[in-house]
Amino acid sequence: MQRTSMHVSQIGEFGLIKALKKLVPVSQGVIKGIGDDAAVLPYNKSEYLLLTTDMLAEGVHFTRRMPPEGIGHKALACNISDIAAMGGRPTFAVVSIGVPGNLPVDFIKDVYRGMERTAKDFGVSIVGGDTIKSGKIVVNVALLGRVEKKNLVTRGGAKPGDWIFVTGPLGGSLKSGRHLKFVPRLGPARFLVERFTPHAMIDISDGLAGDLGHILEASRAGARLDYDCIPRHKGVSLAQALNDGEDFELLFTLGTRQAQALMDWQARQKSFYFYPVGTITADVKEKPDARSFTHF
Amino acid sequence: MQRTSMHVSQIGEFGLIKALKKLVPVSQGVIKGIGDDAAVLPYNKSEYLLLTTDMLAEGVHFTRRMPPEGIGHKALACNISDIAAMGGRPTFAVVSIGVPGNLPVDFIKDVYRGMERTAKDFGVSIVGGDTIKSGKIVVNVALLGRVEKKNLVTRGGAKPGDWIFVTGPLGGSLKSGRHLKFVPRLGPARFLVERFTPHAMIDISDGLAGDLGHILEASRAGARLDYDCIPRHKGVSLAQALNDGEDFELLFTLGTRQAQALMDWQARQKSFYFYPVGTITADVKEKPDARSFTHF
Repeated sequence: MQRTSMHVSQIGEFGLIKALKKLVPVSQGVIKGIGDDAAVLPYNKSEYLLLTTDMLAEGVHFTRRMPPEGIGHKALACNISDIAAMGGRPTFAVVSIGVPGNLPVDFIKDVYRGMERTAKDFGVSIVGGDTIKSGKIVVNVALLGRVEKKNLVTRGGAKPGDWIFVTGPLGGSLKSGRHLKFVPRLGPARFLVERFTPHAMIDISDGLAGDLGHILEASRAGARLDYDCIPRHKGVSLAQALNDGEDFELLFTLGTRQAQALMDWQARQKSFYFYPVGTITADVKEKPDARSFTHF
Repeated sequence: MQRTSMHVSQIGEFGLIKALKKLVPVSQGVIKGIGDDAAVLPYNKSEYLLLTTDMLAEGVHFTRRMPPEGIGHKALACNISDIAAMGGRPTFAVVSIGVPGNLPVDFIKDVYRGMERTAKDFGVSIVGGDTIKSGKIVVNVALLGRVEKKNLVTRGGAKPGDWIFVTGPLGGSLKSGRHLKFVPRLGPARFLVERFTPHAMIDISDGLAGDLGHILEASRAGARLDYDCIPRHKGVSLAQALNDGEDFELLFTLGTRQAQALMDWQARQKSFYFYPVGTITADVKEKPDARSFTHF
């Protein structure tokens, strides 16, 4: 690979991920490696093992003025969201924390308390970790999960004609503080994979436009969004709903017949959990361009 | 739990780990949670799953003047060392990297290259990760492994009369730069568990005195060291060999008969891999006090 004198800020997060991905060879025994919400690994006859990790850094994802319980919650919950997006259930977590010497002990205890409460709520056991000194607070969680082979959903299975759904309203997550309180969509995801057959699924961390883009790339397909149908939080513009990210709602696709069955089921419940927002098309060039909405 | 106004620097790393440990309940389905080199989790009839994680931070564990391949190597190798210390073999890893915007792309690529080379050398597949912006470089690796149930070794099985061994010379690892180049003792560990029955094992990351202390605490035993027998690197004092840490040699105990068999085997090989450094005693108060050697 060519050497370069560029800095990380010049190639951006996705440029860096792409460059590093090239350095990692595809390995034997891995069902699915880098490039989905979680890695899919061999487990037993009927199930796969899932493994994912997320890092949060002070000054980038949170500050010391935010509630520490919320920071702990988010560090674990965004991993639970990844496992949910594969159709699986989370099981065991290990937690690394980098702690500045001048940090009040109670702050870091409260980070842990928030994490432990979320672990309990979602059936996760925290089984180990690492505690180190660092200049700023850093929290990393690695989470294991399991999924029945028949229930595994990746980013790569969307088919032309599929309906595109999201599990809730989008936008303004960082500004509103919702990103520290969100409920990972484990329940809805398990409902979906047990009763339906989603073709593709991802959690919305980068924003609807960006994460739909990940599904389209992996599925080699295009998409048409019904912009009027995209559920938004109060006071949120369409551009924000498309681009803000950190929503941790799920984005998934269903074949036409199943999509209609899901809509019928919702009508019978008299309650709306899944919002249709568009359809998958065969034209790979048909992509919702997030940038074209930045002036909304 | 009582609230306190203390700062992290006032209670230290082990004080903090102790405080956080209390917040994590013991969970069902976990064979062994927090408090060993790796967590031990259910897998199948004959094997356990192992899970461990380690975080390295710029300015604490390394600087930008150090070879980036060495940083990548260490980030993975210290996890491989943890898996080895349980008697297991490493399998799959996920890697989180926090990267400052002003960092040359080549630096972080070289961190990855170092990690990938070590992964290949030890049969590990890197299957995913997270890349974030951060003020200083942070590297976190979470590593899965497997161990046959009959080969699992914890910190807790040392028995009075056991011989204490280490796998190589100690001390001066940070000063000499060895901590960026060490070979995790996976081969010796697997040799031991396949041919012998170590009662307790740990990798030496905190220093011989400290890590032996972990074994003694978990095994509710004491120990007597033969200070003259402790193998040291050239130019390293006894105090350094006892306290320096970051050696990543293994420390283990064997029953008398097996210890003698191991010595016989080494005599036949005409080569020394395992160094006897003392014996386990029944007196829990008998602890090698690292501090008493700081004047050496």
